[in-house]
Amino acid sequence: MAVESIEDKDPALNAIHVSIGYDQRLWREDLDNSRAHVTMLGEQEILSSEDVQSIKNGLDQIEEEISDGRFPFRDEYEDIHLNIEQRLTELIGPVGGKLHTGRSRNDQVATDLRLWVMRSTGPLAGALNELIHGLLEAARRELDRGTVLPFYTHLQRAQPVLLAHHLLAHVECFDRDFRRFHDALERVGECPLGAGAGAGSGFPINPHSSAEQLGFDRPCRNSLDAVAARDFVLEMLAALSIHMVHLSRLAEEFILWSSQEFGFVRLSDKVTTGSSIMPQKRNPDGAELARGKAGRVFGHLQAMLTTLKALPLAYNKDLQEDKESLFDSMDTVLLCQRVLIANVKEASFQKDRMRAAVESRTGYANATELADYLADRGMPFRDAHAAVRKLCDEARTENLKLDELPLERFQKIAPIVKEDVYQALTVEAAIAKRAAPMGTAPERVREALEEAEKRWM
Amino acid sequence: MAVESIEDKDPALNAIHVSIGYDQRLWREDLDNSRAHVTMLGEQEILSSEDVQSIKNGLDQIEEEISDGRFPFRDEYEDIHLNIEQRLTELIGPVGGKLHTGRSRNDQVATDLRLWVMRSTGPLAGALNELIHGLLEAARRELDRGTVLPFYTHLQRAQPVLLAHHLLAHVECFDRDFRRFHDALERVGECPLGAGAGAGSGFPINPHSSAEQLGFDRPCRNSLDAVAARDFVLEMLAALSIHMVHLSRLAEEFILWSSQEFGFVRLSDKVTTGSSIMPQKRNPDGAELARGKAGRVFGHLQAMLTTLKALPLAYNKDLQEDKESLFDSMDTVLLCQRVLIANVKEASFQKDRMRAAVESRTGYANATELADYLADRGMPFRDAHAAVRKLCDEARTENLKLDELPLERFQKIAPIVKEDVYQALTVEAAIAKRAAPMGTAPERVREALEEAEKRWM
Amino acid sequence: MAVESIEDKDPALNAIHVSIGYDQRLWREDLDNSRAHVTMLGEQEILSSEDVQSIKNGLDQIEEEISDGRFPFRDEYEDIHLNIEQRLTELIGPVGGKLHTGRSRNDQVATDLRLWVMRSTGPLAGALNELIHGLLEAARRELDRGTVLPFYTHLQRAQPVLLAHHLLAHVECFDRDFRRFHDALERVGECPLGAGAGAGSGFPINPHSSAEQLGFDRPCRNSLDAVAARDFVLEMLAALSIHMVHLSRLAEEFILWSSQEFGFVRLSDKVTTGSSIMPQKRNPDGAELARGKAGRVFGHLQAMLTTLKALPLAYNKDLQEDKESLFDSMDTVLLCQRVLIANVKEASFQKDRMRAAVESRTGYANATELADYLADRGMPFRDAHAAVRKLCDEARTENLKLDELPLERFQKIAPIVKEDVYQALTVEAAIAKRAAPMGTAPERVREALEEAEKRWM
Amino acid sequence: MAVESIEDKDPALNAIHVSIGYDQRLWREDLDNSRAHVTMLGEQEILSSEDVQSIKNGLDQIEEEISDGRFPFRDEYEDIHLNIEQRLTELIGPVGGKLHTGRSRNDQVATDLRLWVMRSTGPLAGALNELIHGLLEAARRELDRGTVLPFYTHLQRAQPVLLAHHLLAHVECFDRDFRRFHDALERVGECPLGAGAGAGSGFPINPHSSAEQLGFDRPCRNSLDAVAARDFVLEMLAALSIHMVHLSRLAEEFILWSSQEFGFVRLSDKVTTGSSIMPQKRNPDGAELARGKAGRVFGHLQAMLTTLKALPLAYNKDLQEDKESLFDSMDTVLLCQRVLIANVKEASFQKDRMRAAVESRTGYANATELADYLADRGMPFRDAHAAVRKLCDEARTENLKLDELPLERFQKIAPIVKEDVYQALTVEAAIAKRAAPMGTAPERVREALEEAEKRWM
Repeated sequence: MAVESIEDKDPALNAIHVSIGYDQRLWREDLDNSRAHVTMLGEQEILSSEDVQSIKNGLDQIEEEISDGRFPFRDEYEDIHLNIEQRLTELIGPVGGKLHTGRSRNDQVATDLRLWVMRSTGPLAGALNELIHGLLEAARRELDRGTVLPFYTHLQRAQPVLLAHHLLAHVECFDRDFRRFHDALERVGECPLGAGAGAGSGFPINPHSSAEQLGFDRPCRNSLDAVAARDFVLEMLAALSIHMVHLSRLAEEFILWSSQEFGFVRLSDKVTTGSSIMPQKRNPDGAELARGKAGRVFGHLQAMLTTLKALPLAYNKDLQEDKESLFDSMDTVLLCQRVLIANVKEASFQKDRMRAAVESRTGYANATELADYLADRGMPFRDAHAAVRKLCDEARTENLKLDELPLERFQKIAPIVKEDVYQALTVEAAIAKRAAPMGTAPERVREALEEAEKRWM
Repeated sequence: MAVESIEDKDPALNAIHVSIGYDQRLWREDLDNSRAHVTMLGEQEILSSEDVQSIKNGLDQIEEEISDGRFPFRDEYEDIHLNIEQRLTELIGPVGGKLHTGRSRNDQVATDLRLWVMRSTGPLAGALNELIHGLLEAARRELDRGTVLPFYTHLQRAQPVLLAHHLLAHVECFDRDFRRFHDALERVGECPLGAGAGAGSGFPINPHSSAEQLGFDRPCRNSLDAVAARDFVLEMLAALSIHMVHLSRLAEEFILWSSQEFGFVRLSDKVTTGSSIMPQKRNPDGAELARGKAGRVFGHLQAMLTTLKALPLAYNKDLQEDKESLFDSMDTVLLCQRVLIANVKEASFQKDRMRAAVESRTGYANATELADYLADRGMPFRDAHAAVRKLCDEARTENLKLDELPLERFQKIAPIVKEDVYQALTVEAAIAKRAAPMGTAPERVREALEEAEKRWM
Repeated sequence: MAVESIEDKDPALNAIHVSIGYDQRLWREDLDNSRAHVTMLGEQEILSSEDVQSIKNGLDQIEEEISDGRFPFRDEYEDIHLNIEQRLTELIGPVGGKLHTGRSRNDQVATDLRLWVMRSTGPLAGALNELIHGLLEAARRELDRGTVLPFYTHLQRAQPVLLAHHLLAHVECFDRDFRRFHDALERVGECPLGAGAGAGSGFPINPHSSAEQLGFDRPCRNSLDAVAARDFVLEMLAALSIHMVHLSRLAEEFILWSSQEFGFVRLSDKVTTGSSIMPQKRNPDGAELARGKAGRVFGHLQAMLTTLKALPLAYNKDLQEDKESLFDSMDTVLLCQRVLIANVKEASFQKDRMRAAVESRTGYANATELADYLADRGMPFRDAHAAVRKLCDEARTENLKLDELPLERFQKIAPIVKEDVYQALTVEAAIAKRAAPMGTAPERVREALEEAEKRWM
Repeated sequence: MAVESIEDKDPALNAIHVSIGYDQRLWREDLDNSRAHVTMLGEQEILSSEDVQSIKNGLDQIEEEISDGRFPFRDEYEDIHLNIEQRLTELIGPVGGKLHTGRSRNDQVATDLRLWVMRSTGPLAGALNELIHGLLEAARRELDRGTVLPFYTHLQRAQPVLLAHHLLAHVECFDRDFRRFHDALERVGECPLGAGAGAGSGFPINPHSSAEQLGFDRPCRNSLDAVAARDFVLEMLAALSIHMVHLSRLAEEFILWSSQEFGFVRLSDKVTTGSSIMPQKRNPDGAELARGKAGRVFGHLQAMLTTLKALPLAYNKDLQEDKESLFDSMDTVLLCQRVLIANVKEASFQKDRMRAAVESRTGYANATELADYLADRGMPFRDAHAAVRKLCDEARTENLKLDELPLERFQKIAPIVKEDVYQALTVEAAIAKRAAPMGTAPERVREALEEAEKRWM
């Protein structure tokens, strides 16, 4: 039941503070919150068991009504909490009012939102898991195919690596993201229920019971903190933002790699779109949006930081801004995860194009190998580096690969160069050589893959 | 007509790129865009007058359908443009397809959004105007009432000023905001229509005609820029963000001033809300939300900056993110403006509480006057400052106002102090003295008010 | 030794990419990195023990030079790594070049920065600890003094609480901040050394040894990830930003509370400043800056998120932006922590003013008690709430406190009201009543304080 | 002269509020501010002409000292204003104190910063001008060379355009940026001098004189607004941020185009750097940093928005944060402008590689031409589009260009296709066809170039 009638209010006030339009999304959490609360009230003998049962029946009825789309969401009851409260009284009579014994909207709303975060990390982690598995499967397949490509620094070809190695780099990023969500959850897991409006409850309630029923680790420790704190929202938004950074980096590679210039991947029609004008187009729309939407999630994080900055304790109405940004961020991330899962599945990596990039006449991805070859044979690395740099420039002018140069050319740099230099300059040699831990040598990558598969089993 | 069927696509791709859910808001702009385009096609004799008429009839029918809520918005046609295109063909047959002669979605969407910005600045400026008028009316009323209050620096009482002077400070901020919107509009006023997918049109179109019909100043100058640029969105978001800074500063004063501690303003029940628990509460929810929502608009600005950063020319799907952030920012600002208009109207300024703050035993808002008095009579200002500082500390300890001190106490500082010091320490003297331009002396404030009233007539 | 001479470069390129001006701050980390690396090279017999010793001596000499301010930082060697490398060779001859066997700047710089983060969290946690202890001491003192104040919602007086309870709410926020830093450190603790330029090392290095020597938990798992990832920077910036939210909330209370209107705290001259014009001023500059600088840290977080968004693997020069934002954020937070520690120490809480606010004729902080009283005696809470709201309005008009109303006035609402209502309306009764867990009753607060003291011993 | 000694302050307070480390950059503005102010004081006969002359001499001496590096910047005088004030008194005796008659630090600092903005837009506009001229010169050169390339949407090849047309798109972006800076300046041009601490001056000063002397358009209108407003900082930061978006988009193209995959541009060694490990590298570091630093400027904008949000009038110490973010943003933009000017100058566009991209067997940049050809000959565009899409897929499989297909293949789609289809599919035909305004046809581009050259003469 609303304290005041919305008809007495300025329409602008109603328009800005009525939240039922978006907070109805918390209806399950609000019902479960009420169930736990009323159960506890019964346990503590604050309410009679008849009252408890009657309220629970009413809540069940409301659940049905909402599930069936029959529930009358009404702006005049401002938010999901008052809508349910009012409906409960309509359904079961004045006893409905007793549900709110020892609870205020301030602790109720904070509890609902924490509960929502706890529950929504399930799908989030599920999709992250699926994305990682998609990458692991691709890594295994490409390891078996022996796909190599240059890795890039400064978007310039650097050295040859296994594609599996490259894919596992993304897995590591997502692995950390997963752990970040996990850690964030630990701090979400304190239950505000029982804090009342902020000073605590005057009834002999047992917050441990309601916290436990709802799956929290424990009640909050301080009632003012319980209703005033929203760092759990910030931490989740930060973890989602960092995850978007990683998703956007993967997305960027799909965009680059599916360009005609790179040609490293073909995305199936299921994840690309055509153009209304240009018949030849296959646009990586999904990946572009997964990239572009990073800004959106960062913006939500920034919005909440700004909103929370410098608010004095305890509850301020500004806190109502906590929901939309969180809901939209979570939805956005889930969407982007699913798009990238689809992209990974629908990606056909173009082994030949990748190989050609490694061996091309413009990238000289084996230049480091030549410098290493010279250094291994005693030339100071800096001198070797300078000599190879010059040789690359010459080869580029002549439109030749390094390993297309005659032996004399190498020997002009250092007489010690032998025929085996051509072997050292092969892609396979370059990759096999990087066999220290973390490196791209096939046996290292296989170990890393198996370790990751085990971790994510 | 969609190029491809959404059934062939991965559901995640559909979920992320279908935009009809939010871009249907552009339906008026899209219809007008089409009307202008087809009129131009007729003028240029690219289409026959029969075809032009037939298409216009179809567009009129669609307008009716949408207005009446009968229009079949369909996800499978992805966005508002294809939904209308498809419906047109259903209504008038294949001739509907001719509407798109010499137009692509890339120039169409950019035109629609610019048009939307141009049109939505009407209500925005209207509300800003109303807010300014509300402040001017309050200023005139309070000037007539002779309301004074301390102005604050560091939230510490500084010196007495007229409340009208304080209110006019906010008017100046909003005046600059108004001009910023005006300047932004100038850059919005270039019409992308005719840029095609990005290379320009292969038909003998006349972009000047369609630009003029739609109320633009002129067509864009470069087709690639026309489809790739979104700085008009950024500039509007920046102007809205700066406006939110000013709205939030005014809102903060309503919050502070309506606290029991300040008590400078009473807000009527129309703009405050009660508490479900605490019967005594009159919470300034509207002002708090107008403050808190600043973060939201800043976040949208940041989101778009991030999304646009480093995109190569020309169109990229990331640009689709331009709409929701702009729509929500505009809605938010309009809402906050309206809430503050209501707050200004429903504010009852507590002249006595303000006066008491000026004259209180804790603030010493006339300390500067005493220092000036001494300086005027030849004491170096720094010495006067130090002496008065000491005197304030003593008075604070004795719980006295400065002008409650006996003359001897002043003369101990400087024998030159005479009985007229008490006159100099009055609030009226302090205010009257600041009579240079910009200052708070009543005649200056009256001039400033009249000048502002004229400007905003 | 720089690869190329800066003289051959465009001055603008030099100006933008030379980083020695700020990354010299990493000199200790860079030296320790080199010590660990060369020790490992010795262990693996990649370098002879003579070479190892010679290099270590050179590094020791450089440490001395830098400590003594004699080290020649030179722009032409671009960054701290090349400056040290070059100097080493000048000091010990060509053997200096061997230090870089199996290491690249890409893994070196990532390692240095992680190491810096690990080390700088020491002072950070130290200051946080000191701040918490300051609050705990104040809480104990004010608990013993029995200081009460109203807590606020919507900046309106809500209900009486113990000041100790309020202070402990801040402790809880900082406690979570502490745990967030701790969790962030776990992800920082993977050592990139050995990743080379990105493909891993071609030498038989042992990354476990160097990682362990430097205090990392383990080496990174993937060489591309090792050089490309900066989420450890983002996570730290996010944790610092959230911490700034909490610091700014505390700062805001110092600002509000030290205003003449609140008068809840007097800050000593050690933490306030005067005005050059207004002799009476004691401005809470420190608290204002601790509030204002929150924006700065949020901005750095946003900057790095934006910079990292959509970067393809592996190293890109954009990553060079990771340092300044992190350094400045850490410095800012440390500064704000110290300022707030000083504010807490120099705060003299004004028990009488706080008490007066609880008991004032404008706040009606005991209105909830009256409603509870009526509800306890059988009146439906909503009815009680409405009746008390009306009574508060009347009392406000008559300028009376609730407990200054005669008994008849209460009985007009409900005949059941007895003389004991006056007892129920006392501050002490209101506070004692909130004795459920989390609440503000003295015994609960004492327990909570003792628990917190134990936790932070 | 500082009001209080820094020795009496907590070291943390000193550390956080002493600003001389960065605000000394305002020394010229502060001196000119003082010169204008003292001249006005003389004109108004508030000071004698001897005093005015003596102060001016002192200010000249200080200018010399600072220019020569002899000025004693001292932390104990907190900021540039007090440092100069104190030095003035040391140099000319107590008369120095008279300089501050009718001026406070609050109006002084706001004036200095506005003046700095006005002056720093000179170099900013200069560099922008140079960048635009660089692009115009490149456009003219490439127009004469007839360089064509595909433009891209979704980073997929779209249609052929002239490189000159593409370069002019960037010119249009920068043209709007220029106008934005111009508009921002208009709002900067109001002079706060005379507002005193916030209430206006008690002396018969003439703010019009000092405003005019300093090059402002007029004094501010309201003293509280004059000291409290910082929207001029926000507007400048916003304009700089939007400019960084455009700089980053140009930078991104340099990065993409200089990759081996695109190969559209070769950057000279003057604007690229090598790798310490990989001898073949020529990394576009400058462009990468111009891209990466966009985040930094956005972050500064966000920081200031956040800092200013919800500050009550008038001056708050938080405002001190206005300088560093503005200084660093301006420096960053100037640096990035210069780097991109150098990149434009040192760019050697690879006409053959661009041409090859247009004509390649993978991009089918002339597919739209074929669809248009069919549509021109009566086939409904949607059918033509579908048919061409299918043909592209076939050609891709057969590794053929569209114009390498035999005539029969075209005629299978539509018997109406004639030999002239091959002419229509040439790059030249495609480009020449887009001859409507804004389009890429050579005559349009030449007109646009000449118009732009005239505009920027």
